[in-house]
This record gives sequence, C-alpha cells and structure tokens, in this order.
Amino acid sequence: MSTYKLSYFKGKALAEPIRFMLSYMEKDFEDHRFEREDWPKLKPSMPFGKVPVLEVDGYKQFHQSGAICRYLAKQCGLAGSDPEEDLKIDMAYDELNDFRAAIASYHYDANEESKNSKWEPLNTTTIPYYMERFENLGKSNKGYLANAKLSWVDIYFVALLDYLNFMAKQDLVGDDKPALRKLVNEVHAIPAIKQWVEKSPQSDW
Amino acid sequence: MSTYKLSYFKGKALAEPIRFMLSYMEKDFEDHRFEREDWPKLKPSMPFGKVPVLEVDGYKQFHQSGAICRYLAKQCGLAGSDPEEDLKIDMAYDELNDFRAAIASYHYDANEESKNSKWEPLNTTTIPYYMERFENLGKSNKGYLANAKLSWVDIYFVALLDYLNFMAKQDLVGDDKPALRKLVNEVHAIPAIKQWVEKSPQSDW
Repeated sequence: MSTYKLSYFKGKALAEPIRFMLSYMEKDFEDHRFEREDWPKLKPSMPFGKVPVLEVDGYKQFHQSGAICRYLAKQCGLAGSDPEEDLKIDMAYDELNDFRAAIASYHYDANEESKNSKWEPLNTTTIPYYMERFENLGKSNKGYLANAKLSWVDIYFVALLDYLNFMAKQDLVGDDKPALRKLVNEVHAIPAIKQWVEKSPQSDW
Repeated sequence: MSTYKLSYFKGKALAEPIRFMLSYMEKDFEDHRFEREDWPKLKPSMPFGKVPVLEVDGYKQFHQSGAICRYLAKQCGLAGSDPEEDLKIDMAYDELNDFRAAIASYHYDANEESKNSKWEPLNTTTIPYYMERFENLGKSNKGYLANAKLSWVDIYFVALLDYLNFMAKQDLVGDDKPALRKLVNEVHAIPAIKQWVEKSPQSDW
C-alpha cells in the first residue's frame, strides 16, 4: 500500500484538489502544511521549486496539481473511458486553469496601478464569460463538466472553488448558476469528501 | 479517415505543437490562418472564445493545445505506456506551460511600468531556473523530457520554442544546454516534421 505526503502552504488553493482526490480514494495521507517563513528552506527540495508536491512511498516526488489529479483519477474510476472522453475532461480542466490564471493575474499583481486596471475587465468580462461557459458545460453534460458523468475535473473544480472565490472576491457559483451549484452540492455530499471537509483545517483560501 | 482543420492567427505560438503532431502523424490538415482583423468575427464561433481550435470531421471542435496534443499522442505512440509514464509527461508539460505563462506575463503586459519591472527577475531568475531544470530532465532521460524516450511533450517543447524565444528575446537553448539542443535537432530531423517546417509559412513567433 502506497504512502502519501502532500506538502503545501497553510491553505487550500492548488493543494485542495489533490486532498479531495485522495479523500475520495479513501487514502490516508500526511497533510504537511508549512509556515510561509519555512518556504525558503523547503523550496530547494521541490522539483521545480514550487508546491504542491505529493511524495509517494517516501521517494517519488510528483508535482503539478492537474497532472497529479489526472494520474490519481486513473486509479479510482474518475478518468474518461476512452481517449475522446479524456480529451473532454482535459479541455475543461485547461479552461479552468486558464480562468484561474486570469484571476491570479489580478490577485497577485504587485503593481498597484496595473492591478487596479485589471479589476474592471476581469469582473465585468472575463469572469462572466468563463462562468457562463462552465455553466453551459454543466447544462449539456447532465450536471457535470464533461461526458455527462462525474470525473476528476468536477472534483478539481469544486475543490478549487473557495480559492477562486477568494481571489475573485465574489461567490462565482451563485443562484444564477444552477447546474454548477448542484455539482458543488453533489461533490460535497460524497461521504469521503464531506468527511474531509469537516475535519480539514479552516482557511479562507 | 478523419479530416482536420486548425484555426489560429498567422503565427506558430500555441498552434505549432498541434501542427507538429499532425505532421508527425502524416495527417493532412487545413492550416487555417486568419488575419487579426478577422478575429472578432471568428471569436464567437470558438468554444471558449480562443484559438487554437482543431475541427475534426467538420463538426467536433477541440480546444486547448496541450489537451489536443495529449489526445493525438495516444493515436501515434507518443503517449506514455502506463499511468506513471503519462504522469511524468504531464508534469513536464505543466512545467513548460507555467514557464510559458511566466514569459507571456512579461511579453503581453499592457502596463509599461509593470512590464519593465518584470524583465530583470524574468531574465536573471525565472528563465535560468526553468531552463536549468528542463536541461536536467533531458540529461536524466537520455535526451528526452520524460521516460527516457520520445513523447508528445518533446514535440510540444520543440514546436513551442520559437515562440518562447521570441517572447523571451533570447535563444533559450544555446550551447550551454547540450541535452535540449540535441533534442531540438532530433525532433527537427524527423522526416515528416522536417518537411512541415520547410513548407510552412514563415513567422517570427
């Protein structure tokens, strides 16, 4: 049986999708959350100087949250059942990642003038544009983001949502997004994920 | 036999990896390059308002260059041979994508002050940091980026390189990167890719 140690900052963000996946798989894992002041000391031990990193069996270092979730999905029936289904999951994931990057480009902008100028187009154009399309994916896929069935991209989306909401300073999945709202509720109602959310440390992001 | 139509601007950038993959597979494809002034008219017909989009058999619209290349790779022996090999390819791809995003964050920055302030850390820290790690992947994988054998991420990297060099204003794979230099030469020497590069329209990016 494999052992898992997940290293990340004291938040959800890009680690939470992996935590959701491991919880869904009912795997025990060490949830290693370090202080920000300890990061410079840890950074050189990470393959590309970033986290999350999932250490498996004490020596394999897996990085990149999307790649890790896709890999775990193959072990628990949350991947596609053929290459075209996998493509549809991957397209939804890559769009979600582009959306996250657009919000992060605002949130993490160190230049105040530049940051301020990004808010209006982000809030009035980019966010409604992407969210409408994700809602449409849900509507045309029986409530899921791809292939009309639960897959790892649905878990990823729901796990990432608090972080996205935090950066975007709004509830992205409100009453005007019924398909996505239902998806969020459904994923949170999966017993192993419900249990994880209840026991996991609280954080805004 | 499937038909392929690839829509993109008049450049290489994110479309070129798909063009390399289709060429490697010896597939005929319509290389639809449109004028920038025609983009507003075309944008609403693209699933997430972006390109590249690969239209297959006249009705399926596939988007996201990484997802498309991963899908095509499964048809031509350039995917991994098991889930862990696929993970290693995906990790290298996601790091390459983060690297591209970091360079693009400089290149496309609309705020001059913000843009200028990004150059120094990009040029002296981010670029050397990532490129050293990609070179190390090459050295520890017999000249490839993953699994000690040619895969789609190698094709992707080589196809994307002109665009990265253009945005980064330098030759990223110089003499100090012998493993990557050799990989670039090897991919360009694949007959179907060599033929594509020779016949394809010239562009700086």
